[in-house]
Amino acid sequence: MALRGALRLLSGSHKCAVTVSRAQGTSAAAHKGTSLFRITGRKDAKVAFSWRDALNLEGQLTEEEIMIRDSFRDYCQEKLMPRILMANRHEHFHREIVSEMGELGVLGPTIKGYGCAGTSYVAYGLIAREVERVDSGYRSVMSVQSSLVMHPINAYGTEAQKEKYLPKLARGEILGCFGLTEPNHGSDPSSMETKAKYNPSSGTFTISGSKTWITNSPVADIAVVWAKCEDGRVRGFILERGMKGFSTPKIEGKFSLRASATGMILMDEVEVPQENLLPNVSGLAGPFGCLNNARYGIAWGALGAAEFCFHLARQYTLDRIQFGVPLARNQLMQKKMADMLTEITIGLQSCLSLGRLIDEKKAAPEMISMLKRNSCGKALDIARQARDMLGGNGIADEYHIIRHVMNLEAVNTYEGTHDIHALILGRAITGLQSFTVDK
Amino acid sequence: MALRGALRLLSGSHKCAVTVSRAQGTSAAAHKGTSLFRITGRKDAKVAFSWRDALNLEGQLTEEEIMIRDSFRDYCQEKLMPRILMANRHEHFHREIVSEMGELGVLGPTIKGYGCAGTSYVAYGLIAREVERVDSGYRSVMSVQSSLVMHPINAYGTEAQKEKYLPKLARGEILGCFGLTEPNHGSDPSSMETKAKYNPSSGTFTISGSKTWITNSPVADIAVVWAKCEDGRVRGFILERGMKGFSTPKIEGKFSLRASATGMILMDEVEVPQENLLPNVSGLAGPFGCLNNARYGIAWGALGAAEFCFHLARQYTLDRIQFGVPLARNQLMQKKMADMLTEITIGLQSCLSLGRLIDEKKAAPEMISMLKRNSCGKALDIARQARDMLGGNGIADEYHIIRHVMNLEAVNTYEGTHDIHALILGRAITGLQSFTVDK
Amino acid sequence: MALRGALRLLSGSHKCAVTVSRAQGTSAAAHKGTSLFRITGRKDAKVAFSWRDALNLEGQLTEEEIMIRDSFRDYCQEKLMPRILMANRHEHFHREIVSEMGELGVLGPTIKGYGCAGTSYVAYGLIAREVERVDSGYRSVMSVQSSLVMHPINAYGTEAQKEKYLPKLARGEILGCFGLTEPNHGSDPSSMETKAKYNPSSGTFTISGSKTWITNSPVADIAVVWAKCEDGRVRGFILERGMKGFSTPKIEGKFSLRASATGMILMDEVEVPQENLLPNVSGLAGPFGCLNNARYGIAWGALGAAEFCFHLARQYTLDRIQFGVPLARNQLMQKKMADMLTEITIGLQSCLSLGRLIDEKKAAPEMISMLKRNSCGKALDIARQARDMLGGNGIADEYHIIRHVMNLEAVNTYEGTHDIHALILGRAITGLQSFTVDK
Amino acid sequence: MALRGALRLLSGSHKCAVTVSRAQGTSAAAHKGTSLFRITGRKDAKVAFSWRDALNLEGQLTEEEIMIRDSFRDYCQEKLMPRILMANRHEHFHREIVSEMGELGVLGPTIKGYGCAGTSYVAYGLIAREVERVDSGYRSVMSVQSSLVMHPINAYGTEAQKEKYLPKLARGEILGCFGLTEPNHGSDPSSMETKAKYNPSSGTFTISGSKTWITNSPVADIAVVWAKCEDGRVRGFILERGMKGFSTPKIEGKFSLRASATGMILMDEVEVPQENLLPNVSGLAGPFGCLNNARYGIAWGALGAAEFCFHLARQYTLDRIQFGVPLARNQLMQKKMADMLTEITIGLQSCLSLGRLIDEKKAAPEMISMLKRNSCGKALDIARQARDMLGGNGIADEYHIIRHVMNLEAVNTYEGTHDIHALILGRAITGLQSFTVDK
Repeated sequence: MALRGALRLLSGSHKCAVTVSRAQGTSAAAHKGTSLFRITGRKDAKVAFSWRDALNLEGQLTEEEIMIRDSFRDYCQEKLMPRILMANRHEHFHREIVSEMGELGVLGPTIKGYGCAGTSYVAYGLIAREVERVDSGYRSVMSVQSSLVMHPINAYGTEAQKEKYLPKLARGEILGCFGLTEPNHGSDPSSMETKAKYNPSSGTFTISGSKTWITNSPVADIAVVWAKCEDGRVRGFILERGMKGFSTPKIEGKFSLRASATGMILMDEVEVPQENLLPNVSGLAGPFGCLNNARYGIAWGALGAAEFCFHLARQYTLDRIQFGVPLARNQLMQKKMADMLTEITIGLQSCLSLGRLIDEKKAAPEMISMLKRNSCGKALDIARQARDMLGGNGIADEYHIIRHVMNLEAVNTYEGTHDIHALILGRAITGLQSFTVDK
Repeated sequence: MALRGALRLLSGSHKCAVTVSRAQGTSAAAHKGTSLFRITGRKDAKVAFSWRDALNLEGQLTEEEIMIRDSFRDYCQEKLMPRILMANRHEHFHREIVSEMGELGVLGPTIKGYGCAGTSYVAYGLIAREVERVDSGYRSVMSVQSSLVMHPINAYGTEAQKEKYLPKLARGEILGCFGLTEPNHGSDPSSMETKAKYNPSSGTFTISGSKTWITNSPVADIAVVWAKCEDGRVRGFILERGMKGFSTPKIEGKFSLRASATGMILMDEVEVPQENLLPNVSGLAGPFGCLNNARYGIAWGALGAAEFCFHLARQYTLDRIQFGVPLARNQLMQKKMADMLTEITIGLQSCLSLGRLIDEKKAAPEMISMLKRNSCGKALDIARQARDMLGGNGIADEYHIIRHVMNLEAVNTYEGTHDIHALILGRAITGLQSFTVDK
Repeated sequence: MALRGALRLLSGSHKCAVTVSRAQGTSAAAHKGTSLFRITGRKDAKVAFSWRDALNLEGQLTEEEIMIRDSFRDYCQEKLMPRILMANRHEHFHREIVSEMGELGVLGPTIKGYGCAGTSYVAYGLIAREVERVDSGYRSVMSVQSSLVMHPINAYGTEAQKEKYLPKLARGEILGCFGLTEPNHGSDPSSMETKAKYNPSSGTFTISGSKTWITNSPVADIAVVWAKCEDGRVRGFILERGMKGFSTPKIEGKFSLRASATGMILMDEVEVPQENLLPNVSGLAGPFGCLNNARYGIAWGALGAAEFCFHLARQYTLDRIQFGVPLARNQLMQKKMADMLTEITIGLQSCLSLGRLIDEKKAAPEMISMLKRNSCGKALDIARQARDMLGGNGIADEYHIIRHVMNLEAVNTYEGTHDIHALILGRAITGLQSFTVDK
Repeated sequence: MALRGALRLLSGSHKCAVTVSRAQGTSAAAHKGTSLFRITGRKDAKVAFSWRDALNLEGQLTEEEIMIRDSFRDYCQEKLMPRILMANRHEHFHREIVSEMGELGVLGPTIKGYGCAGTSYVAYGLIAREVERVDSGYRSVMSVQSSLVMHPINAYGTEAQKEKYLPKLARGEILGCFGLTEPNHGSDPSSMETKAKYNPSSGTFTISGSKTWITNSPVADIAVVWAKCEDGRVRGFILERGMKGFSTPKIEGKFSLRASATGMILMDEVEVPQENLLPNVSGLAGPFGCLNNARYGIAWGALGAAEFCFHLARQYTLDRIQFGVPLARNQLMQKKMADMLTEITIGLQSCLSLGRLIDEKKAAPEMISMLKRNSCGKALDIARQARDMLGGNGIADEYHIIRHVMNLEAVNTYEGTHDIHALILGRAITGLQSFTVDK
């Protein structure tokens, strides 16, 4: 697995020129050469249009980003795609995938040092897109590890915490989860009921409460849990499996993200050493910072799922003959595909712009809300349309699209629902909050 | 009017560093300084989110582009905005606007030489956006002159034609129109009925036929008209007002683009000298090249109209109190605005990417179809939602939005309807045409 | 004009069997005879499907209702349709139409006695549908006279008031308007600022305030105005043109309902005799009762406008050949028409059910909110789609659809916007109000 | 189980007055009494609005229909609802349900004689609505038995066939399936490849071919199979399990209608006695007649599923507190519910009208296409919105809605996709087919 080597190189020097030795994708090739813009009317060669990359995103990536993306795409297509059908059908989580991802260097990829690759945020987005092209459950596993576990330890933790946890998390040796959402408080974490009480004698915190809809929790080795301290401030703690009073029952009967494990975190007077407190943040800024990080990845990832659905529906309708012509020759089919192509293309362009802004430290959280919401809502629509295009076959898991339809329901909901992000944006636009009945 | 001077400078040297002396807009200012990305969790200053520019488009423009845009925006807001209400109400076309635009250097701005500014295509897009922020009718006048009259003369004409017409057109001394669409052939120009017959004796062409829905025709001095020659090939001709048999009746009762004049071109055996033939193109590639050029401007322009509607509806709902709070504090209003913001932002990002591709001669016509369609369809939706937000006042022209609603109906239809562009894209995606019943 | 005679007959005896001597419409004819349901598989004649009446509404009407409808349809098509083009283009209100309608007996048609026809509410709905098939402005004039002026006088007035005003209003000799909405209070009439102060000495009320967006006001002879009395209760008054301090300036620049006059009602200490108070109602129940009555008519009327747009777009696309076949042969066109047909059909079925419930006194106001909202929202969508189907011709008023598009913007907004009715329904569903920020 | 007794009574005499002794549902009760229509303004009691029955459908049903509906509703809620969660989770089909339904008399309920109940088509619709309120898979089982197996035997079969099969099918002793769709021919059955060859010597037909997406096939005792005879005409045959060469492999990995069994029918030279031919129909009229019958039930059933989702989402959002108030108090939630209520109500009104038309033998197949399409498309939208309202819990099967979302994907697709019915309607509207590329 050569990607890790390349990524290690990158972590040493961001400026090194990495030669892309493998064949580039169709889309990149389509735009190479000296072709000129046709509408000038001169004797220019016509530029070919690529339905895989309608505004030449490829040309806006660095060689490094393309190399990282291509290597990881190979892994996703060759190693994940063959496993997903049965994993989803039987709700089976393949723990070894985390180790494989660690081997490839895609866990916590933007973190510098501690065994992490230190890529650009654009590269992180490309990674999320490739894995979610296969399955949103796999991307969720990766997002949680990278953005919700490694990121807070890196951003809010002590040097000792970083050294203790980050390298193992980066290698996929241990798996983490993130405990914020509570049974009665989905969109409103400020009403959190989980409590952390400091015990001066033992220098520990006693944490009690419950968290639900926690990706990875049933199989996680550690959990970054947010609890309200006696001063009313929310703080983050690193809990480890094996602590007394800590349990993580699995949620059964889930019809979305079935290839990843989801559960609760139950904490019955769990005693947590003081050195497991994340000291450098307090208040909701801590978990919100993590969520922003994760949402950025989702914005890319959801469009990867949408691309898969579009491409598969295209091929299906080209191959299937009805009334003597391919289904794809029907206006009703072509209009659906034109809409899909458009939304995917303009969505990806905006994700790229956002990634560049993050890399330049010019991004605001509302930008991420906007694109998380846009990508998820549009991807869900696209997946539904694609399923419809497959007719009866569209409900069989071997055609994959029904799985994406079910997955994207969760993706559109978690880390801020479509409506909640609308209200976040509405507040940014008007200066007036409309979440609550308070003036 | 200082813009022209600046543009003249530009036409001499594209690389000159133009100092932007005027105060920059709010959106630009919002992203200046050294603020850092908040989600890193470090002690970074939070980046402010600007609802006027949600993904920092401003930061992706050159100083020259910003200068051109700002100068022209001033003109549009100060000189056009005060005239539009009555012009639209009474269907009055202000001919002098063309001269003013000529003075500013925004006619045929991408053409190099012949008194034209030679700007980038991105700058052309920004110009279109600013003028359509005021009115799509004014943008139509400008698009026709620049993309449908000056462009074909520049791209397909002789040196003599360029020298004769382009400087006058650039100055707005003369106004042109573009005759392609015929009464019975809207979306299907290949069925064109207008005929051009060559007369070897006189060295002239005799042209007969009629064109309809021709922007500018009632007031145009010249017309670029497309006709089918005896060899069955479509060719372009420059007709001049005053030629015998040439008339341009106005279309009455138009409830869209009322500030621009629209009419027919009737040609009853008009005799046109051979030197008025555009020699360097034949077939539909000629008019299609022009249309692509114009559609690119529309893609930007329509979003300018959408921005106006969004901004006005935002301010209206902030100012209007119902049930004790501003209308803008309602969730239903905020959701509409969140959708508007998102579509405008991602649409503009994509227009910018397309503009850069055109400047690099890497754009394909289907890219333009995609964004013309996306911008127009989305802008129309946004204008309709904005009108709804204004309640009863939304139907009064002094609130402007009803005018944009009516205008965008035409803009969504002309130069390729929303559905026709879907089928163009569908063909590009599938390789199968579905326009006709032919296999 | 034979209808009035028939209606007079009806007002005497509801049970008389009126012979329908004229040819019935296509839709009725299509369902006559002994044809049997095909799916039984027996040797039954197939029932023909009528795209004009897809669920046989005709068969659910009484002979009287059909007769009233057909007579009035003839009037609308023969007398109103030829006038509407120029009336709308030039914002001209034809006052004589009110007299013609009076002659036909369609003003205040459900009122029993006082020269009114005493029809069923279903018949009233059919009348609204026919007139709005021509123009929503004409229907507005009629709705205001019938539901907002004659209805409150009949429902809340004294016997003397009824005898004084109803016969003249029924004949169209005088025209009324309805003053509820104020400049700062569109959706929230409870914040009304217009005041009525009782003067014991003179036995008069002094009324001051202003009302806006008042249909008919510039040409009305009387106005039913709602004002807040000193006890804080809202009460209704009949004002007459000529009273000192009463003026009705016209609103200019309206791009919707241009064939009807709209204005303000300005009241500067208007002295109104006590006998002009409507004594039998107080509070917002008064105006809300009127609005419910009017909204019921709008629910039918808006679908009449939608039917016109559907039928015209159907014919247009059948007649227009592109790419060698009628536009109507395209899947994208047929899908639009299938949607139109469906929404019109199911909307009308529900209006009929509602009309029957009103006639049986089993209707609740929320039912009317539901169908006013549904009909208007769907009709607006249909009109927009129809306009799109006409391409460039769709913006010319001689094709009529652009006029309906503009009209329906107002119709969807007035007498409760689409969103306000959603919140009315939401409250009825949940028991929780969400109009205001109060818990 | 008292319903069957009542139904038996009904099958003897349609006119007998059945006393409804049990308590009527909430919706019926809400409209009883002498309440009068409020908008008359008189001292009438206000009519209460019922969100469960917004246009008083209840008042339009006969006592018999209400009795049948209520009895069956009790069964569905008490006996089916507790079984569905695990049945769906584990893809388990409870065969005994068919016998229970047979016991209740709801299989083939509109058939007269042969042990069938002989109800109205409206009653059939109500039955479908109640069962699909629980699960579309159960309704599918019932639809297939009633409309696709019993109906063709009754409509096209011999007296001997009716006596042999109908009573057993009515009692649920044997289960049937319907073989029309083939692997390569979903929407276009005229291209059927299954062949039936007559053998004069043995008086049998030899049938070869394969059918797919066949509800019930893996567990069916008999199959009504459509095959092309040597004269090119399609004819129906009754095949029985156990015939040599007949097999019915189950389709695995289905994520829709998991509580019903779906499979293929493989026929490898199956020899079928001549007396198993359905003699009274040939051509596609046979299967299309069956499909129309089934589609009518789907039109009602899908709205039953939609009602369940609406009611559950309403209760969920009333119970769940976020930001200090019930979720249901939010405008965004109320708007979704207002839309749901409206579409369910107007959809059901139209289904009722259609049922009455069928009972009067005045229905055309296109009417059924229209309402099958409308109900399914709208129900799918409603289920999706409801799922969204439940947030994270919306993906857990114990909240049921995700199951309806998945089910309705199939329901919207089978027996004519949403698009195919659009084209059927388009053809009925325009007289022009657009299914194929033929003129």
